[in-house]
Amino acid sequence: MDDYLERIRSGSLKLYALEKELGADEAVRVRREYIESESGADLAALGSFTIPIDQAVRKNIENMIGAVQVPVGVAGPLAVHGEYAKSSYYLPLATTEGALVASVNRGCSLITRAGGADVRIMRDGMTRAPVFAARDIIHAREIVTWVEEHVSEIREAAESTTSHGKLFDIVPYVAGTSVFLRMEFDTKDAMGMNMVTIASAKVGELVERETGARLVALSGNMCTDKKPAAINVVKGRGKTVVAGVKLSDDLIATLLKTDAETLAAVNYRKNLVGSARAASLGFNAQAANVVAAVFIACGQDAAHVVEGSTCITTVEKMDGGAYVAVTLPSLPVGTVGGGTGLATQRECLELLGVHGGGTPAGANARTFAEIVAAGVLAGELSLLGALAAQHLARAHQELGRG
Amino acid sequence: MDDYLERIRSGSLKLYALEKELGADEAVRVRREYIESESGADLAALGSFTIPIDQAVRKNIENMIGAVQVPVGVAGPLAVHGEYAKSSYYLPLATTEGALVASVNRGCSLITRAGGADVRIMRDGMTRAPVFAARDIIHAREIVTWVEEHVSEIREAAESTTSHGKLFDIVPYVAGTSVFLRMEFDTKDAMGMNMVTIASAKVGELVERETGARLVALSGNMCTDKKPAAINVVKGRGKTVVAGVKLSDDLIATLLKTDAETLAAVNYRKNLVGSARAASLGFNAQAANVVAAVFIACGQDAAHVVEGSTCITTVEKMDGGAYVAVTLPSLPVGTVGGGTGLATQRECLELLGVHGGGTPAGANARTFAEIVAAGVLAGELSLLGALAAQHLARAHQELGRG
Amino acid sequence: MDDYLERIRSGSLKLYALEKELGADEAVRVRREYIESESGADLAALGSFTIPIDQAVRKNIENMIGAVQVPVGVAGPLAVHGEYAKSSYYLPLATTEGALVASVNRGCSLITRAGGADVRIMRDGMTRAPVFAARDIIHAREIVTWVEEHVSEIREAAESTTSHGKLFDIVPYVAGTSVFLRMEFDTKDAMGMNMVTIASAKVGELVERETGARLVALSGNMCTDKKPAAINVVKGRGKTVVAGVKLSDDLIATLLKTDAETLAAVNYRKNLVGSARAASLGFNAQAANVVAAVFIACGQDAAHVVEGSTCITTVEKMDGGAYVAVTLPSLPVGTVGGGTGLATQRECLELLGVHGGGTPAGANARTFAEIVAAGVLAGELSLLGALAAQHLARAHQELGRG
Amino acid sequence: MDDYLERIRSGSLKLYALEKELGADEAVRVRREYIESESGADLAALGSFTIPIDQAVRKNIENMIGAVQVPVGVAGPLAVHGEYAKSSYYLPLATTEGALVASVNRGCSLITRAGGADVRIMRDGMTRAPVFAARDIIHAREIVTWVEEHVSEIREAAESTTSHGKLFDIVPYVAGTSVFLRMEFDTKDAMGMNMVTIASAKVGELVERETGARLVALSGNMCTDKKPAAINVVKGRGKTVVAGVKLSDDLIATLLKTDAETLAAVNYRKNLVGSARAASLGFNAQAANVVAAVFIACGQDAAHVVEGSTCITTVEKMDGGAYVAVTLPSLPVGTVGGGTGLATQRECLELLGVHGGGTPAGANARTFAEIVAAGVLAGELSLLGALAAQHLARAHQELGRG
Repeated sequence: MDDYLERIRSGSLKLYALEKELGADEAVRVRREYIESESGADLAALGSFTIPIDQAVRKNIENMIGAVQVPVGVAGPLAVHGEYAKSSYYLPLATTEGALVASVNRGCSLITRAGGADVRIMRDGMTRAPVFAARDIIHAREIVTWVEEHVSEIREAAESTTSHGKLFDIVPYVAGTSVFLRMEFDTKDAMGMNMVTIASAKVGELVERETGARLVALSGNMCTDKKPAAINVVKGRGKTVVAGVKLSDDLIATLLKTDAETLAAVNYRKNLVGSARAASLGFNAQAANVVAAVFIACGQDAAHVVEGSTCITTVEKMDGGAYVAVTLPSLPVGTVGGGTGLATQRECLELLGVHGGGTPAGANARTFAEIVAAGVLAGELSLLGALAAQHLARAHQELGRG
Repeated sequence: MDDYLERIRSGSLKLYALEKELGADEAVRVRREYIESESGADLAALGSFTIPIDQAVRKNIENMIGAVQVPVGVAGPLAVHGEYAKSSYYLPLATTEGALVASVNRGCSLITRAGGADVRIMRDGMTRAPVFAARDIIHAREIVTWVEEHVSEIREAAESTTSHGKLFDIVPYVAGTSVFLRMEFDTKDAMGMNMVTIASAKVGELVERETGARLVALSGNMCTDKKPAAINVVKGRGKTVVAGVKLSDDLIATLLKTDAETLAAVNYRKNLVGSARAASLGFNAQAANVVAAVFIACGQDAAHVVEGSTCITTVEKMDGGAYVAVTLPSLPVGTVGGGTGLATQRECLELLGVHGGGTPAGANARTFAEIVAAGVLAGELSLLGALAAQHLARAHQELGRG
Repeated sequence: MDDYLERIRSGSLKLYALEKELGADEAVRVRREYIESESGADLAALGSFTIPIDQAVRKNIENMIGAVQVPVGVAGPLAVHGEYAKSSYYLPLATTEGALVASVNRGCSLITRAGGADVRIMRDGMTRAPVFAARDIIHAREIVTWVEEHVSEIREAAESTTSHGKLFDIVPYVAGTSVFLRMEFDTKDAMGMNMVTIASAKVGELVERETGARLVALSGNMCTDKKPAAINVVKGRGKTVVAGVKLSDDLIATLLKTDAETLAAVNYRKNLVGSARAASLGFNAQAANVVAAVFIACGQDAAHVVEGSTCITTVEKMDGGAYVAVTLPSLPVGTVGGGTGLATQRECLELLGVHGGGTPAGANARTFAEIVAAGVLAGELSLLGALAAQHLARAHQELGRG
Repeated sequence: MDDYLERIRSGSLKLYALEKELGADEAVRVRREYIESESGADLAALGSFTIPIDQAVRKNIENMIGAVQVPVGVAGPLAVHGEYAKSSYYLPLATTEGALVASVNRGCSLITRAGGADVRIMRDGMTRAPVFAARDIIHAREIVTWVEEHVSEIREAAESTTSHGKLFDIVPYVAGTSVFLRMEFDTKDAMGMNMVTIASAKVGELVERETGARLVALSGNMCTDKKPAAINVVKGRGKTVVAGVKLSDDLIATLLKTDAETLAAVNYRKNLVGSARAASLGFNAQAANVVAAVFIACGQDAAHVVEGSTCITTVEKMDGGAYVAVTLPSLPVGTVGGGTGLATQRECLELLGVHGGGTPAGANARTFAEIVAAGVLAGELSLLGALAAQHLARAHQELGRG
């Protein structure tokens, strides 16, 4: 051990190269000790992880020193009526924010008591948009024309790189001499970012060769990945999912201690008018909380929470109750690849019955997306309900009825 | 055990009520078994956590069934020259996305070789904006006027609820009959959401009593919390932090295998023009990746990654090299409260020397914010550099120089 | 004449230099003839203008060849209860879009029948935000600090350039090495763009001299002038005005042929949910139509219609009717300067009783802003009412009641 | 006359009904006199218009009292190399903002000296997006599916209402129970709003009948008409046009008194970084100025200036000079209908050779769009150039070279 520490300190052994000389467990241990000695911090807890390490260091992490443990609570049962998810689920939520699980749990009860959440996927496609430099705007137009006229050739190039992915849309955008090709793939059960990046590289070569365009970056930010962009809100990225539930007046009174009108009013002033006044791309109460907690539990890419928060929540008073819905235009999820294979994350997916590839391909990821949307609906219902109950209580108080 | 499972199944014992009858460890175990039996999933790995459970179930999670383990790697050393962070750090990154740590690590090397990242905090305040209903727009105007004329009274009410927080700005906004009071607090080392929510409730009562406004929701979405909103991009929320580094031509050539002009060109077409064309609120390459990984490692609220992704990355060619900077208008962080007290998360903060309350109060959270910004800069440099190197290589190839 | 045409053709006389040799009328005539001969177009109607030409060529236009005539219709009477506008008005609308005046007129009737529109100005300030280049982000922070500590010195410099304008807010923003100083002025009855630009130049010199910042552009687009920007939606630019009216159920039934609930539903689905789904900065039906028509009639800067369209329209069902309001965060108007002195435009302002400087200074521009907001409210009511009436009719039809 | 005034005052004759009893000229005169007597304002100049009145009162205006006269100047010659516009033009600009024509004129000179502006149209379609209410999200999904499966039936219905318009795209969007159908038409030489609204009504009936959806509003704000919306920036509305020009170093030095690097730097800090920091949908210097002035001169709908301002301006330093381009994603123009038939507006279109229907149909509107884009480019060049010259001068001064 000391020998390795010495070599690292002297620079003759790189911190990231430990796995070349040692087994994974040992490498991580030595690296952690080195970091402890450098920082003076005790990292014993970080080192007390129990997940198998081989896969992690091979696929998920570099320079590993340990693992952070995030408590997981369950919310449920949550009855879901999707096209894929047709059951009742316990939603695993990994979070350190007290009261979140309790809040979502309350929403799940409400939904389940109301007969379950309806969910539908409106669109499903992972995108990548490389950016090319044209010589001038004439050239930019020519590149676009070439693309429009060679869609099947482009598709062939793209799909030659993947056994699963299908390119089903390609839209060229121009800004001056920059040409963006936003390609959208059906990536089945994979979230698909890697798949579409590799396919885009192949397309990039083709476009460069045939048009003289020069590929500047495989991602030109019109994808848009992990940035809150209107293009995703409008056109969707990953799964575009909508979930809704009808609550009866009785249920609203009994479980939420409010009424349909107040519930609608709170959503209107907060989620619609307030978000409009703030120039927001998110019109919801706490979609990001639920998305983040499920994503961390289930081995999703946590940076994709950015897109998840662009949810629009709507509440409409109707005869006998209220209809509440959430619209998530841009929910990127997968049940294979990424962090889905790690022991604890895998179990969270298994708890939902969606780990690995689905039958048919894509079914697991779609089931998962439907469950997440229902979970977001639960979170919205719970928080809006709590706000509405307080609001109604105050209103009664003022009127001397409190 | 079977007895408890039976009672849960029969509905006579609520899943969330187990802690009332059992110790925390036992309650979690019984709950997990129940969920296993309901779902048919084996949750052994989730149950093999090692962090102390008492604090978690008291403060961080409800309905706990176990913990998910997220691998942590380090990137560094990262030399930072902030007003608070003045040292070299190993950045803990919790992620399941392979190559991320390696990418950030490469950026850290580059920054450190370049002499370190300069970092400055431009503004620091956590916000809450309750929404009130006015009778009509005349009333709305009166409420605003009352607020403008009673700032010290409002401040007194707000600060009566907290020993640490200081209210330093209050801006009223009106949309029709909805009045929003966006209050901004110095919350010291706490991220501060709870603190400002409690203070806002007190202010809400005062405003209701004095003006006849009716509080509709403690958060009116002009805060804006966990939604990507322009108000945060423009005015800031949490810490507004800027980090920058000058890279010499030599360093760019040696470590990034590209040149200053290409680096600037990639940033321009991708991060600026591409983001503009996508109508994005984020003008960066991968800020969310770094923010998410640090936040999960360090017990931050992962849903706040949404705000972190609104970073603007700029690259300017200058004499002898390039200047690269990241601007994060809205970075909410804390070193006390939330998930910062959990064993593994605490160690990650300790690794950075920022766990707990700082001296003076607020210093730890600010140090942490500066380090995160430098880490984001590392991620940007690394990815932009990789794209630029490929771009340059292709350009050379075309010219027969490759 | 032929002589001049010849000299222009030969290049010895510049088209724009005609006024140096000829009187204004003659210069315009010669120029028009030249353009006619070049283009082959007959421009007789353009030449048949009747407004005095001297002022126009001196202040409003270069290379003048004539005038375009835009039909003006009136909508009204429109009863307004503002803090400044306290009367009934006929609103002059210059437009070529058939049905617009009729639509606004219908809204005016409705408002007047309902007792008039309440209007309040929430904020009033014209902005300019020069952008400076800093050497690095440390320097950027220093510039900001210097500005924060020298507000009165900056104010003195700014106000030395104007007899009317008062600098009342200055907010520094940083993006990497770019520093923006958004200064906000009370410009009284002037729209104020020129005033604040001149003042900003003076401030720019001061900041350059004292901080070593280098002024890159007097407008750094954080003003934001004539671009649809969230900063204006959130913080306001020009006048932030809110107008509202309560409509009784009876009035809604009689004049709009619909009911309060339907009116609210149309606004909700179209102006709020639809705009949210389109990622819009405008949440209204036709604010831009009214703003454009009034602006052209009254000699305002027509490019400022951009900001006018960021209006938020809200409709709330309430006991006995509905409350409808419009919120215009960013309405730049003036009653002196610009096109306000031209004969026809001046008359349109006089029709509203707001031409020239007000008593006290600023009162005319504020009166005007209040009237415009009430006019926008009229346009919204009319269009929403028409949509709601159709919607209700269809609903009845379906139910066999139609 | 007095008789009519008396009847109007007594309410027995409606102001808008004058044309029913009197010829157009007389009706306008009486109405103006009535307004004069009511307001006390002298409206002689408004009454001194010379355009034929019959068409105006029939098609363009209601409640007419006169006409406002807006001075028109020309900028040019402006050499344009489009696919449609292939000539040199004098651009008519109607404005009251002094210096605007001179500024654009300077840009035209520069472009023409540089060999002319290249222009290309990337997409061309006018949109309308009615909003429907579904019973629940399942119904919403069914409506979308029905639409996707009945595109030709929808097209047939839409095109049955128009002899010119062609429906070429229809995209359904859902937000909860609201379904939006964004339909895009080729409207040839007409701007097309009326055409697509009528067609949408027909489609609305069909969709209602076949799916049970209820049409809430013919425009559901996802069109998006006259509001600054990201959907238009991303997908385009009206013409999506790009114009560009290469400026040699010599030309930049001689005509703009600056250099390529400074020009690019000003655009970068102002139009890109500044607009990003302001969360703007417009990344340009003064596109709205040019669009507004041309639109008013040429009888376009002035409220459409809103969309015109979402231009992205790019400047790239290149070997031997700089390449400057403007991208206007959403430029709605027409050469028939609207205000294009009024005498003075018609002449402005004739000056450009684009009045009326083109050969083939659509050619005139496309030519016009290309010219407008080149004009916007001229405005950008001129203003950026002026800012850059000042910036360069200051830089030299500091270095003692000034």
